[in-house]
Amino acid sequence: MPPDPLIVFTPSGRRGRFPPGTPVLRAARELGVDIDSVCGGRGICGRCQVALSEGEFAKHGIASLDEHLSPFSEVEAAYARRKPLASGRRLSCAARMLGDLVIDVPPESQVHRQLVRKPVEAVAIELDPAVRLHYVEVREPELAAPASDLRRLLEALEAEWQLAGLTCDLHVMQTLQESLRKGGWKVTVAVHDECELVAIWPGFRDKAYGVAVDVGSTTIAAHLCELASGEVVAAVGMMNPQIRFGEDLMSRVSYIMMHPGSEAELTAAVRGAINDLAAQAAREAGIDRADILEASFVGNPIMQHLLLGINPVELGGAPFALACDGALTLRAAELGLAFHPGARAFVLPSIAGHVGADAAGVLLAERPDLSDEITVLVDVGTNAEIILGNRARLIACSSPTGPAFEGAQISCGQRAAPGAIERVRIDPATLEPRVKVIGCELWSDDAGFAAATRATGVSGICGSGIIEALAEMFLAGILRKDGVIDGGLAARSPRVHADGPTFAYLLYDGARAVRITQNDVRAIQLAKAALHAGIRLLMDRMGTAHVDRIRLAGAFGSHIDVKYATVLGMLPDCDLARVSSAGNAAGTGARIALLDRRARGEIERLVRGVEKVETAVAPRFQEHFVDAMAIPHSHAAYPHLARVVKLPEARPQEANGRRSRSARRRTALPAK
Amino acid sequence: MPPDPLIVFTPSGRRGRFPPGTPVLRAARELGVDIDSVCGGRGICGRCQVALSEGEFAKHGIASLDEHLSPFSEVEAAYARRKPLASGRRLSCAARMLGDLVIDVPPESQVHRQLVRKPVEAVAIELDPAVRLHYVEVREPELAAPASDLRRLLEALEAEWQLAGLTCDLHVMQTLQESLRKGGWKVTVAVHDECELVAIWPGFRDKAYGVAVDVGSTTIAAHLCELASGEVVAAVGMMNPQIRFGEDLMSRVSYIMMHPGSEAELTAAVRGAINDLAAQAAREAGIDRADILEASFVGNPIMQHLLLGINPVELGGAPFALACDGALTLRAAELGLAFHPGARAFVLPSIAGHVGADAAGVLLAERPDLSDEITVLVDVGTNAEIILGNRARLIACSSPTGPAFEGAQISCGQRAAPGAIERVRIDPATLEPRVKVIGCELWSDDAGFAAATRATGVSGICGSGIIEALAEMFLAGILRKDGVIDGGLAARSPRVHADGPTFAYLLYDGARAVRITQNDVRAIQLAKAALHAGIRLLMDRMGTAHVDRIRLAGAFGSHIDVKYATVLGMLPDCDLARVSSAGNAAGTGARIALLDRRARGEIERLVRGVEKVETAVAPRFQEHFVDAMAIPHSHAAYPHLARVVKLPEARPQEANGRRSRSARRRTALPAK
Repeated sequence: MPPDPLIVFTPSGRRGRFPPGTPVLRAARELGVDIDSVCGGRGICGRCQVALSEGEFAKHGIASLDEHLSPFSEVEAAYARRKPLASGRRLSCAARMLGDLVIDVPPESQVHRQLVRKPVEAVAIELDPAVRLHYVEVREPELAAPASDLRRLLEALEAEWQLAGLTCDLHVMQTLQESLRKGGWKVTVAVHDECELVAIWPGFRDKAYGVAVDVGSTTIAAHLCELASGEVVAAVGMMNPQIRFGEDLMSRVSYIMMHPGSEAELTAAVRGAINDLAAQAAREAGIDRADILEASFVGNPIMQHLLLGINPVELGGAPFALACDGALTLRAAELGLAFHPGARAFVLPSIAGHVGADAAGVLLAERPDLSDEITVLVDVGTNAEIILGNRARLIACSSPTGPAFEGAQISCGQRAAPGAIERVRIDPATLEPRVKVIGCELWSDDAGFAAATRATGVSGICGSGIIEALAEMFLAGILRKDGVIDGGLAARSPRVHADGPTFAYLLYDGARAVRITQNDVRAIQLAKAALHAGIRLLMDRMGTAHVDRIRLAGAFGSHIDVKYATVLGMLPDCDLARVSSAGNAAGTGARIALLDRRARGEIERLVRGVEKVETAVAPRFQEHFVDAMAIPHSHAAYPHLARVVKLPEARPQEANGRRSRSARRRTALPAK
Repeated sequence: MPPDPLIVFTPSGRRGRFPPGTPVLRAARELGVDIDSVCGGRGICGRCQVALSEGEFAKHGIASLDEHLSPFSEVEAAYARRKPLASGRRLSCAARMLGDLVIDVPPESQVHRQLVRKPVEAVAIELDPAVRLHYVEVREPELAAPASDLRRLLEALEAEWQLAGLTCDLHVMQTLQESLRKGGWKVTVAVHDECELVAIWPGFRDKAYGVAVDVGSTTIAAHLCELASGEVVAAVGMMNPQIRFGEDLMSRVSYIMMHPGSEAELTAAVRGAINDLAAQAAREAGIDRADILEASFVGNPIMQHLLLGINPVELGGAPFALACDGALTLRAAELGLAFHPGARAFVLPSIAGHVGADAAGVLLAERPDLSDEITVLVDVGTNAEIILGNRARLIACSSPTGPAFEGAQISCGQRAAPGAIERVRIDPATLEPRVKVIGCELWSDDAGFAAATRATGVSGICGSGIIEALAEMFLAGILRKDGVIDGGLAARSPRVHADGPTFAYLLYDGARAVRITQNDVRAIQLAKAALHAGIRLLMDRMGTAHVDRIRLAGAFGSHIDVKYATVLGMLPDCDLARVSSAGNAAGTGARIALLDRRARGEIERLVRGVEKVETAVAPRFQEHFVDAMAIPHSHAAYPHLARVVKLPEARPQEANGRRSRSARRRTALPAK
């Protein structure tokens, strides 16, 4: 008797012999080949598509011929009438082995495929959603065998899907009988994490949705995804309505301290906003909010506590004790979220009182632990959350940068919005500036600038604009290394003018004059010194004098010109080509956690392994902070920068040691 | 060096050597001796009391002397000032080993002790509540070590109580920080099933409560228990308010069928009643309803479905498909129960569409599977739920007795209430009756009966009374074997009189005459035939012609005189001393499940092993039913009964075969 036909699956390379007539899907299942299916091999879902690899004789030692596969069947024809089936594609549940075969499983037919992300250096998202759909046919009830509807459903799920020992949500039990009868004993169920039956629908259904939410103190952003494909079907955002209780985090905590019980209002505000956002995203995607089966959340610790309904007052002062810091899997309904009644919510873990689930999200998106290179991850907000490390070790801290980088505490500062100055160039010879504003592609000295900005005007300067302004002022010699605006230049240019006992620089002279004052410089110096000192502190702990890569997460990081940030000494020296924006990395982390349940375990493990450094009690932090107040320009400290930017010459009276000692005496540290 | 002192614990017999100065509790822990503690050895809870066994030299080979135990300590004295400490009792956490010891652990100091039940033949309840309290001291938060409050609490629970990997309810996270700070970092937590943190309180607390609920279609009964001692601290009951939707189960299901959506009202009614009952029980026990941490539920399948919020219409007709039949552990809040937010609800499993969690409760209370004897368990309601079996095998069915046993369908029938006839004697010579009514100890021919019953009068006859009346009528010859009231006796006594085409018997001639009509006899015949046929069917399946014990559960079973029930042929022949009431066995089963979490696994396992017989499709059921219509009196069939009761002679014209054939033709089976 000849041996049974051989089947080889690519790309896995798994192979085995099966009797003629065996469906390709069954062979795949037995060999552990990853092929998707929702309908369980009934030719309904079309998820199990494969293609015949002909002419693979040389590579696999067998001839894989067209006639070795059963002819296109009625099941496949019926499917192809409903949905397009690409040429050469077969449904592996319907196609049967007749002879030796090499079968290719395309990526979209694999459950655990990779979702490639746009930025080339970011890691790909592995798809392994916690919620999966399964179509089953359930035995009808019989008088003589009184097993309950649920028991027979569970038996079917075990027999068809090898899902044993499932628990069942109460709301599923409540709708189970109706679904079974409406669907003619055919239903689709959603199973969470291979252990909980969380939803049931009559008949066949093949789309399950989840939402990844980044709960920022200023904005809340949500990505609605189809879970099996990972596709983002809607991306929406809105202002955090908690802003009415306080512009920044600490003022919201103060509000709660002054109005005991008001934490419930802030919780209701954020939950309401998430419900609204989810409804908006669902509308855009043409689904219902109640179709959402999964949610994942990142946010700083105060946002996370308020989302969870936990009073955040302990985070308002030392020792900044978190109520909880581990990753949480909850029912979305417990968070007041009007998703599917069986929806689960995954909240990413927090690292420390000021390094929250948002930082965990950045970590998950960037995975510095997968490389030997020393990476710095920076997420700038009211505090800068900093993570430094590599495969061997990860260290994190939060540094009290204050809100200056967001345009607050700056005389002409404003949020990044149309009309805000975001780009600055200053001619070192004439000290004349030119600027660009958000919403206009022209420079201020281009013809037509005034007309192009008539609607918004030039209203102020945003966080990234102020960094450029100061760096250009420094490069033009207007700003001294110690941060003092050089009043001596008032003789050379009217742009430099007295402003009380100090001097100011007139950056834009329009309907509203935009000036950089000495106080503005001081505010940025304090902020950038805090950021730099935080990074230095972690470098000390790591025992390294250099870093290989710097990734700037969040809105500020997306808009800043890294060259200017380095000129000002916000960041340590690094190959400028390796300093880049990580985009909304926290939100990406939430999306990864949404789509890949293995990542949930990974991030919990990673976060627990992160060493936390508390800047407030680290003795060297103050030293680094004071040293970082000045604007550095030594070629020795910034060799990479010096190759790109012509740094001003050091003047003898600004010797480093003296300045930093006096700065230490004069400069109050910003309150945490 | 001499060996370390030896310690022997009784009654476990565990022994080991420990260095001098070792606290007795620590030695017990290391040896795995079962000693209770809530405070973790801090001398607060007093649960770990032990006594020194002196003079145990001979038995254990060591001298256990007073001076071998450390002197009464300040910790113990402080405890004794707060609560009485019996003479000779020591706190094992404070008493230390100084020499060889025999230490007796009294039952009340054991976690897993037995709770002895009153009826001698019932099994004892093993105490092993799912919820346990643990007092812990938690490390204060530190800036330099940013573990969250929850993390440090979990660490303390693992270190002090070996509870690893606990999950935590969201509401606990929400109150955690306040509890820790109010309690000065000392809190008591409740842990469910050694895996879930479900409650937290500041400081020390040593009482946890649970409620066992029997959800009957007529009445709902609740036992509030202190979980660690098993003590019933309040027992309350009330009418099921669903009665306004229908007197019996099937009329409620009909109501729902006729008023779609009304199932929510019935669910709200039963949940509201349970909340009210729990509040009443809590008041009686001097606690708050929100102190209830556990609940267990039994009830017939329709009550169970309505409690769970599941529409029971599928149970209104064949094939009587249950939505779910397994044991369930839910959050009490999911059932709308306003207990502690962390309270869990355990719902006992169901056996089949008509053999519900109430039958499972009876099974758990009676445990026929622990004996070789063949036991019959009968719970009479609208249906009789019957379980028959022993160690080898358990078989169950539900038999459609209808409501006659509850006094319905009987011309003068009424619920068991004051004024209802419950005892009957008829003089065979004169055919004169005497009766007793509920609420009066006198017989109707006793002097003073009229005066004693003036308040209630003699208002009708209850279920157990009708059984006695019919049996006495039979023994007096008024009722023939075929159930016909013998009109020929009208000549002998005016008590027997024509009633349309048939005859009736005047049982009581007062303000309201209480008569037994031919229709009443027929209704009881149908009911008792159904019950008897159900038992016979199970005996057939079991392959047995006899049973060793019969236990009658529920209110009917508590009041019935088993001799008369046997005379009428409700039950098969059995030693009358072995036929007894099991009381509210379903409720007892709920209480066992409340107090012993191992019993929860046991009952799930037991129930799944029960063979279900569906009377409606069992061919022999109808045959048994028709045969059981007659009133049996053969000495051969009822040898045990014949020893106790003088059965009337068989008359030739009533030969068994002929009657049962004709009965088969004439008797309609009661609709299920």
